[in-house]
Amino acid sequence: MNSVTTPSSNQPSIAQQENGEHNHHHEHHNCCNHHQDVVDVSPTVVEQSIVNGKPILVNYAEKYVKHVDCECCADAGFEGPEKRLEVDFRPKKSDLPAYQEYLSHHNDANSSEEEETANPNYYNLMNISDETWQSMLDLACCRILSKKENEHFSCYVLSESSLFVFRRKIVIKTCGTTTLLGILKRMKEIADSQGLEAELVIYSRKNFVFPHRQPHPHSSFEEELRYLTEEYPGGEGHVVGSVLSDHWYLYICDMQGVDDQIRKDPDQTLEVLMHDLDPEVMKQFMEASRKDRPTGMTIEQQSGIDKLLPGSEIDSFEFDPCGYSMNGLLGKCYWTIHITPEDHCSFVSFETNVKSSKVQYYSELIERVVHTFRPGRFTVTLFADDHWDIRHEDHTLHRTPSTDDHTTLLDKESFQIHNSNLLKTYNAFTNLALGDEYKLKSKTFYEFTGGYNLTFTNFAKIVNN
Amino acid sequence: MNSVTTPSSNQPSIAQQENGEHNHHHEHHNCCNHHQDVVDVSPTVVEQSIVNGKPILVNYAEKYVKHVDCECCADAGFEGPEKRLEVDFRPKKSDLPAYQEYLSHHNDANSSEEEETANPNYYNLMNISDETWQSMLDLACCRILSKKENEHFSCYVLSESSLFVFRRKIVIKTCGTTTLLGILKRMKEIADSQGLEAELVIYSRKNFVFPHRQPHPHSSFEEELRYLTEEYPGGEGHVVGSVLSDHWYLYICDMQGVDDQIRKDPDQTLEVLMHDLDPEVMKQFMEASRKDRPTGMTIEQQSGIDKLLPGSEIDSFEFDPCGYSMNGLLGKCYWTIHITPEDHCSFVSFETNVKSSKVQYYSELIERVVHTFRPGRFTVTLFADDHWDIRHEDHTLHRTPSTDDHTTLLDKESFQIHNSNLLKTYNAFTNLALGDEYKLKSKTFYEFTGGYNLTFTNFAKIVNN
Repeated sequence: MNSVTTPSSNQPSIAQQENGEHNHHHEHHNCCNHHQDVVDVSPTVVEQSIVNGKPILVNYAEKYVKHVDCECCADAGFEGPEKRLEVDFRPKKSDLPAYQEYLSHHNDANSSEEEETANPNYYNLMNISDETWQSMLDLACCRILSKKENEHFSCYVLSESSLFVFRRKIVIKTCGTTTLLGILKRMKEIADSQGLEAELVIYSRKNFVFPHRQPHPHSSFEEELRYLTEEYPGGEGHVVGSVLSDHWYLYICDMQGVDDQIRKDPDQTLEVLMHDLDPEVMKQFMEASRKDRPTGMTIEQQSGIDKLLPGSEIDSFEFDPCGYSMNGLLGKCYWTIHITPEDHCSFVSFETNVKSSKVQYYSELIERVVHTFRPGRFTVTLFADDHWDIRHEDHTLHRTPSTDDHTTLLDKESFQIHNSNLLKTYNAFTNLALGDEYKLKSKTFYEFTGGYNLTFTNFAKIVNN
Repeated sequence: MNSVTTPSSNQPSIAQQENGEHNHHHEHHNCCNHHQDVVDVSPTVVEQSIVNGKPILVNYAEKYVKHVDCECCADAGFEGPEKRLEVDFRPKKSDLPAYQEYLSHHNDANSSEEEETANPNYYNLMNISDETWQSMLDLACCRILSKKENEHFSCYVLSESSLFVFRRKIVIKTCGTTTLLGILKRMKEIADSQGLEAELVIYSRKNFVFPHRQPHPHSSFEEELRYLTEEYPGGEGHVVGSVLSDHWYLYICDMQGVDDQIRKDPDQTLEVLMHDLDPEVMKQFMEASRKDRPTGMTIEQQSGIDKLLPGSEIDSFEFDPCGYSMNGLLGKCYWTIHITPEDHCSFVSFETNVKSSKVQYYSELIERVVHTFRPGRFTVTLFADDHWDIRHEDHTLHRTPSTDDHTTLLDKESFQIHNSNLLKTYNAFTNLALGDEYKLKSKTFYEFTGGYNLTFTNFAKIVNN
């Protein structure tokens, strides 16, 4: 599989032409679940179809959902901010030989995760068929539009956002009024069929733009927590950032016991969640302006998306009447962008787990993203799983008391910290070179037991009067 | 005024003997506002009375509240965790000469706040009479039991917790089912009578043990925010810590414009909020065990409270049938402890703004507090107002990129930080010498524009099976 940029075709969706069917992303009459009668969503019919010249899976579950017109939907906006679920799996503890091999393998400093090749057809989510994933996605009310894969992971462009499947990890984000948490039970069954069980569950989302339009179980964070703790009890639920402005919800449930601590590669997820984008930039992602694009130029080339992480393979989809989704593959790293371009509810999300030498600093990557999309305000989250436990932090800090009796307690209690892991993520994007364009509004840093930490920041464009 | 420890008398409250009246703190039939008919809370009758040998103010507003017995109150517990409000005041901007004098005074590096003596009878909340404060406290449904003052502040022990009045600052915390936010309008009027207006408003509280028993406007954080933003709009509302375990609510509204930035002394508030305390320690704060106390020994000497911040003047109150409150005065610094000793809902709060050379580190003070009360779990919050703006942080960090191409992005982006203000509060109590007794559960660090920052940590006792 080559690794050059291979953007999607700019032609209208063949599936739409052939089937007279629209893709979900920006069907506005589907925005308000309060006025939707679910008649029957099963059985699901899965058919092979062609979209953007590629064979894809299409199901017709949504045909069983009867849309009822209502006043509030007439000028409704699309819910861009995605619900996001990441689950790390391990061989089931009840499957003792496999579990012990897993532990000893990960505790052997000379072995790499990739080398673990016993049972290649088991303990591996990449063995799961597209049809089976679609049966799970049906429960979230979205469907597969496109697929790409390399040796490290498979990725799917969905009618609402994206799904990434690694050997023992799933990352799925779905926007609009999808019911992401509806997949929990089915996901358990699918993992179970590969001898796997969840080790770490992370659910997160930004505050919704139109929260009253969200269906069960997404009508509130409390409702989501009830659903999550029923399947995966014992986690922590956090509201990150001011509840009166841009904020972010997080549920993290770590099922790894202290005795099960295993060596893993450091892992991190960077998200840039942008609102109020420059209409000139957004225009490129509307059907109406597609005809103005120079012949032979892709939307990625036109918009500058192809320059964000050069050398990536790109799988993208342009929605009618507007909207855009893409998945990028760069070795072990993925990146994904989802665009809601409508002026009254514009939103762009950028996400990546990149940690290669492709970018020199996160700050520089964030700068490129922000300058490509020109948001009015944006939130950056960096969740890092470096397996460094806060309980050990006293070994990394060196207390250097002041000898001046007149200083304050806080002055006395300053520390010298040298490249401490503690501060890795906290400082990862403090030096954003955004000039006088943007202002840092607030910043929060979380440490969780198990070595996870989170940095959350809000930025706003500086308005010159 | 001397500064030696002068604990309260151990005798039963004289007010109770004389008036046949109980103090509020642990009257359990008052716990459930759902079953309370407020008949008429005005007009307030204020009378002079004697409690613990000291003249105090007693009002009878609560006599107008008719208590209705109900089943759920029969074995109800007391709500120990306090609502806390801190307001910093300045001369009103509309009073331009006074406001400009205030600005120039605070921007003159050679002047101290204490020296500002123009208009000694104005712009000073310490001029306000006890009767006027009681008229404000009536709206929170609590009353003054005792008062002490020094040249820097006055402090009041209340029927539910404490009130501190500085020249231009109020700190008030009230526990139980008091209606603290009911005072906002009256507090504005009182400040206005001294030519003052609010410059910074901070409301905070721990999650309630019995949230369903709280009256309007404290039945939820959302309701509290509606009330707060109506009087002081434009602030930030944060939920700090996991909503599924011990957490803390914060509203912060900074009305100081960028152009009004003035030089102020660094200020910080440390709170240690303790649950599930050792019953042997709590027994000391119950009426039944008072008779076992050696003659001549105070409750502070018996419990070790007198050793927490030696040299303080102490004003304390023992409640019937149980409970304890104290205020400590130590020059410019205050400290305050409130104890709910009942086994099924035990809670102790410790708070101080101490920054003198009386304690070497916050960690050592926290250790003393924790070893004095022996909680099963506790939360430490440190809110620091050092007027250091996050917008300037890029001047304090020195990016030192790694030259190793194989390191991760986060490794590359490590920083060397030398005694940065940024980390003052974050590291203020990472080195708690709690041995193998307690485990750090989670840790969060917030930065707010205006130079405020907050560190929040949860600890739990390690249970050895």
